[in-house]
Amino acid sequence: MSKLVPPHGGKGLVCCLLEGAALAAEQKKAEGLKKIAISDRTKGDCIMMGIGGFSPLKGFMTKADWKGVCEKFLMADGTFWPVPITLDTNDENVKVGDEIALQAADGVIYATMKIEEKYELTEADKKWEAEKVYKGEGEESADDVFWKVAMEDHPGVQMVMAQGKFNLAGPVKVLSEGTYAARFPGVYLTPQQIRDEMDKRGWANVAALQLRNPMHRSHEYLAKIAVEVCDGVVIHSLIGNLKAGDIPGDVRIKCIQTLIEGYFVPANIINAGYPLDMRYAGPREGLLHATFRQNYGINNMLIGRDHAGVGDFYGLFEAQDIFDRIPACEGGKGLLCKPMKIDWTFYCHKCDGMASMRTCPHTKEDRVILSGTKLRKALSEGAEVVDHFGREEVLVILREYYAGLTEKVEVKMQKAASGADM
Amino acid sequence: MSKLVPPHGGKGLVCCLLEGAALAAEQKKAEGLKKIAISDRTKGDCIMMGIGGFSPLKGFMTKADWKGVCEKFLMADGTFWPVPITLDTNDENVKVGDEIALQAADGVIYATMKIEEKYELTEADKKWEAEKVYKGEGEESADDVFWKVAMEDHPGVQMVMAQGKFNLAGPVKVLSEGTYAARFPGVYLTPQQIRDEMDKRGWANVAALQLRNPMHRSHEYLAKIAVEVCDGVVIHSLIGNLKAGDIPGDVRIKCIQTLIEGYFVPANIINAGYPLDMRYAGPREGLLHATFRQNYGINNMLIGRDHAGVGDFYGLFEAQDIFDRIPACEGGKGLLCKPMKIDWTFYCHKCDGMASMRTCPHTKEDRVILSGTKLRKALSEGAEVVDHFGREEVLVILREYYAGLTEKVEVKMQKAASGADM
Repeated sequence: MSKLVPPHGGKGLVCCLLEGAALAAEQKKAEGLKKIAISDRTKGDCIMMGIGGFSPLKGFMTKADWKGVCEKFLMADGTFWPVPITLDTNDENVKVGDEIALQAADGVIYATMKIEEKYELTEADKKWEAEKVYKGEGEESADDVFWKVAMEDHPGVQMVMAQGKFNLAGPVKVLSEGTYAARFPGVYLTPQQIRDEMDKRGWANVAALQLRNPMHRSHEYLAKIAVEVCDGVVIHSLIGNLKAGDIPGDVRIKCIQTLIEGYFVPANIINAGYPLDMRYAGPREGLLHATFRQNYGINNMLIGRDHAGVGDFYGLFEAQDIFDRIPACEGGKGLLCKPMKIDWTFYCHKCDGMASMRTCPHTKEDRVILSGTKLRKALSEGAEVVDHFGREEVLVILREYYAGLTEKVEVKMQKAASGADM
Repeated sequence: MSKLVPPHGGKGLVCCLLEGAALAAEQKKAEGLKKIAISDRTKGDCIMMGIGGFSPLKGFMTKADWKGVCEKFLMADGTFWPVPITLDTNDENVKVGDEIALQAADGVIYATMKIEEKYELTEADKKWEAEKVYKGEGEESADDVFWKVAMEDHPGVQMVMAQGKFNLAGPVKVLSEGTYAARFPGVYLTPQQIRDEMDKRGWANVAALQLRNPMHRSHEYLAKIAVEVCDGVVIHSLIGNLKAGDIPGDVRIKCIQTLIEGYFVPANIINAGYPLDMRYAGPREGLLHATFRQNYGINNMLIGRDHAGVGDFYGLFEAQDIFDRIPACEGGKGLLCKPMKIDWTFYCHKCDGMASMRTCPHTKEDRVILSGTKLRKALSEGAEVVDHFGREEVLVILREYYAGLTEKVEVKMQKAASGADM
């Protein structure tokens, strides 16, 4: 019997993905249905509902769910959920009772849905949602600047405000997992696949490390603390879309694999990816990370400094503190994946190893602190990276990637200079 | 309200130490009572019952308790307890109903006791107790060698076999905490004192590091892992008696204080000592460590490699595994202080920091592994200690201590050579 934490919501893994004959029939039917264009964010949500990653959700949220989630982290039935999972459209004509096909920009129909509710979100509603979900306690969330700064710099808020006029609610039948399995073989794993692997290894107490960056020493340290005190760790990368300028999924996964081979005991690690885009929702996204990790059989969510942060909208440890403020629900409706809160980490010369603000009493001068931004700059310029910040084998991969980018830019510049593009 | 784990047994802190007028009256009465000589081990047990460290015990165990504890970790009332806490004597004359005074070798009367039960332990009973409590799964516990080796080399077994013919059971009134408070000011702290300090700091999730040695990098690493994932760590040293050749309590406490000042964040650490002798009971002693730590408000017990080990009587991780085999008791009667199991730890050059067998995939050649015995040898000979094994500030204290020992030996040898002692 599995010793892992049960899926969220107390109803087992709720998987909306069709298979075999049912899938073929629904795909055929979908061709004839009215198509609703969906965002990449919604495409990820469909796939997660398909594979049980968003258990117990069976479809997109009703107005009551939306309101309860924004306001008090609770769906209408009393189940904890941290971020609205809603389907928006500007289509005036679709109506309750209609069956629709959800089609992404890649032309693929990811799901069909029976519309059970259609509700309008006015500008004021969207602003309310944005404030409830995305507003934090950082400088850029201050009352007098939030809306000015957010519309410029907060991709999560921008996404909410850019949503269509209506939300459509109803149960989905999911038709495709997209190209993840092909692009990330052995790494794109469903909740059931990860649970099976962990059961095989006899794990009961498992932590997840959320990653949307290559893995540096600080990430490695977080994972290793968890390895020391848990049965194992799932290094779980976002392999959906990020913002421009971020390092693509395949490069990140290669970095992680290289790091695991050289610096971890593989028996204690699973390297996996999940098919969501970043929502850039800061503390609430940290809660979402924990919520869907529970479905993957994970009961500890590593939350470090500025988890899922965006600009200066959030305090550095707001994503840790929010876990203390969520409702405790009865009967499997509450969040069972708990935060493993880790302070600001770094290499310290006096400590002679990795440390955090909780363990190291020394000063700034003793510590190797490098921001991701500065690292990207150093790598893209081919400059040396300060000792102890990353593992050489990983930096080699990143230098190669950045050299490739530079070549592309140089080719473009040469073309421009020679008039080839003009 | 305190967020700490409640004391073991569900009855709060049970403290048998008298105070004020009651103490003075009982001390006076004790002078007139029959004196029973107690061992140093029993003296420690009395003090622990005095300060609530052995809650819910109110006195020495009855035969039913003794049997249940040896056989199935349970006292007669169904409360978990891992090691018999018994009072032995060879006195043929004391009888049920007598009041006696328990006097240690230092002449101090540590407690009075009303005898409620007197039971004989035959040689066979003692052997049974020794096998139940001290026999492990290591080489020296093999059936064909255990009794030959144990009588030579197992101080715990030797103590049991050297016990008197009878055990006396009954409730104690404790009259003295001995000289601990004077010898270890600020370090010898009662369970209530440690709880008060932790409440003041707002701690809820606390780990203890058991120490009977100076603190090397491996111990530091264990403590620091716990600091990363708990509210704080109590570095809790045995300050009772050890076997000959071990480093005395005051030197050890000085090492720890120096290490905390230079390499820890003091707000996250409490440096304390407890007044017991080593029982050298291996895995069962690990359980005892967790049991009395719960009374100190600690809910996680760090258990590393060969915890409380003796010779080769136990497997290296037997003190971790035994926690999986103890009875789960209802209603506060079970052990609520859980093991925090950490693998074999060391400095690894390739990892570029401290690591364990769970986190480091490298080979022996990359690791700094030094036994306590080899370290003592190097220090006593004034030899260099390999890099990364200990902190220089701590090694300085240890070198001083060993240099002092060597001087004493040299003075003795000079005296001998000059005939002064002859």
